[in-house]
Amino acid sequence: MSARFERVALIGIGLIGSSLARVIRRKELADHIAIATASSETLEHAHQLDLGDSYTTSNAEAVRGADLVIVAVPVGASGAVARDIAHDLSDGAIVTDVGSTKTSVIEQMRPYLPASVHFVPGHPIAGTEQSGPEAGFAELFEHRWCILTPLPGTDEAAVERLTHFWEACGSTVERMEHTHHDKVLAIVSHLPHIIAYNIVGTADDVETVTQSEVIKYSASGFRDFTRLAASDPTMWRDVCLHNSDAILEMLARFSEDLAALQKAIRWHDGDALFDLFSRTRAVRRSIIEAGQEVDAPDFGRHGRHPE
Amino acid sequence: MSARFERVALIGIGLIGSSLARVIRRKELADHIAIATASSETLEHAHQLDLGDSYTTSNAEAVRGADLVIVAVPVGASGAVARDIAHDLSDGAIVTDVGSTKTSVIEQMRPYLPASVHFVPGHPIAGTEQSGPEAGFAELFEHRWCILTPLPGTDEAAVERLTHFWEACGSTVERMEHTHHDKVLAIVSHLPHIIAYNIVGTADDVETVTQSEVIKYSASGFRDFTRLAASDPTMWRDVCLHNSDAILEMLARFSEDLAALQKAIRWHDGDALFDLFSRTRAVRRSIIEAGQEVDAPDFGRHGRHPE
Repeated sequence: MSARFERVALIGIGLIGSSLARVIRRKELADHIAIATASSETLEHAHQLDLGDSYTTSNAEAVRGADLVIVAVPVGASGAVARDIAHDLSDGAIVTDVGSTKTSVIEQMRPYLPASVHFVPGHPIAGTEQSGPEAGFAELFEHRWCILTPLPGTDEAAVERLTHFWEACGSTVERMEHTHHDKVLAIVSHLPHIIAYNIVGTADDVETVTQSEVIKYSASGFRDFTRLAASDPTMWRDVCLHNSDAILEMLARFSEDLAALQKAIRWHDGDALFDLFSRTRAVRRSIIEAGQEVDAPDFGRHGRHPE
Repeated sequence: MSARFERVALIGIGLIGSSLARVIRRKELADHIAIATASSETLEHAHQLDLGDSYTTSNAEAVRGADLVIVAVPVGASGAVARDIAHDLSDGAIVTDVGSTKTSVIEQMRPYLPASVHFVPGHPIAGTEQSGPEAGFAELFEHRWCILTPLPGTDEAAVERLTHFWEACGSTVERMEHTHHDKVLAIVSHLPHIIAYNIVGTADDVETVTQSEVIKYSASGFRDFTRLAASDPTMWRDVCLHNSDAILEMLARFSEDLAALQKAIRWHDGDALFDLFSRTRAVRRSIIEAGQEVDAPDFGRHGRHPE
């Protein structure tokens, strides 16, 4: 089964969309790359970067004749995109997305999509804190997981073809039930981003410590959080709005644990603190052993630190 | 004024102590490096690594004849070390430390130290998540801040000599009042570590998501926290116990902010979420511009990711 398509339509050309455009071209995964984005400025930028073969602000125009349509927009815009493209999709086309929440995307897109297309929701677990067409790179998906959450009854050949496509991009594909995906991502991705945004906001507000002191001494811990907190605000607003149940559940657990930790600090319970701080050390070791993290201390960034 | 000493006594030979031993030897900052640590196993390890010129489990023995004594132990052990060495310190010796809390270290050590020595509390803002004598490296302090918190009336020549020493190690020295230091560090270092420990603990406990899923998909955000949460448990237990007032104040602010964020998620207040997520992005930009962080996306670790 070939990973190659005749015409791939990329709806949205941010970090993920533009990385896809680059890897599709490099690995020759499509004869034609059609790029659509709502912003004419972003479209022009994509054109200047020579990311595709055709450019349009019309989602409907981009998908005409496409055998693969990849929706790569903030999850809150998925429904509008599905409505835009519904009547112009080719029979037998595979329609997928890259959104960080899956239940909401399915609920938003499915009502619009005709039965003649294969809808296979997807989520590449890849990204950086940067955004926009210039932030993408062809290697983004290498050695990364891509989760597909096909609904029961989806054409198996379509799922397998999309699997081959992601494998050709360098990823390893897993399948998961969409509600389970949303719980997993709530804890491994959404909660960490929300906590990072929150702590950076808190530090920004402390009036007894100057902002320049926070910046200056950030290497002592704080700066690790600023990477996640520099992620695309529109994307993360939408994630919060579209996976709120699972996120609120994880936030409640986090807050309960933090209350217990706060109590241990207030009552000088050194044993409780030591137990928690020992247990968490093992988790990082497992992540490094699983090949999901660099082994070098300080993320390996010491050696490349600015002068 | 020379940064060179005749005999430097290092009390404690973990990440910081062993990094100091290495840079002192490389830069020829002492004629003799005397190493003391309570654990005979760690001492033997330091000996095998050839980190010093003499080795002892007696703190008192190490400081005899030393013109610079650097206490590099978890902050909770500072008082006991001061008591150990009090009667064996040479007149005119400089006694400093590297602890992450300063008020507590001063309260613990000062009552024991004779008036004939110069006590200059210090804190190099440097470290990694690793610990033990094998984790140290001579470059640890390069391009890093070192904060000194001398008490009023301290001999200026002693403070300047210690300043030259840290500069020779590659650091830039700042002076600060000890109570202010503890507030600054509470927000830039202590709160981030506590939050990181907490979220890793929370993720470890979620029963609807398997531990292997947390590990597998950790690159989507979670793994950034695991670095801080892999830090030395004894050191961080002591920091929590010895800077508890400032930490509890920062925890309270963090929790208030998190409650407001949680409410915005529950009530689908997209504008409030977007505002916070936009504001925090600027903070990272400032840190990069201040030369305190690498500019490469994903901490620059993508290129060196394990296969």
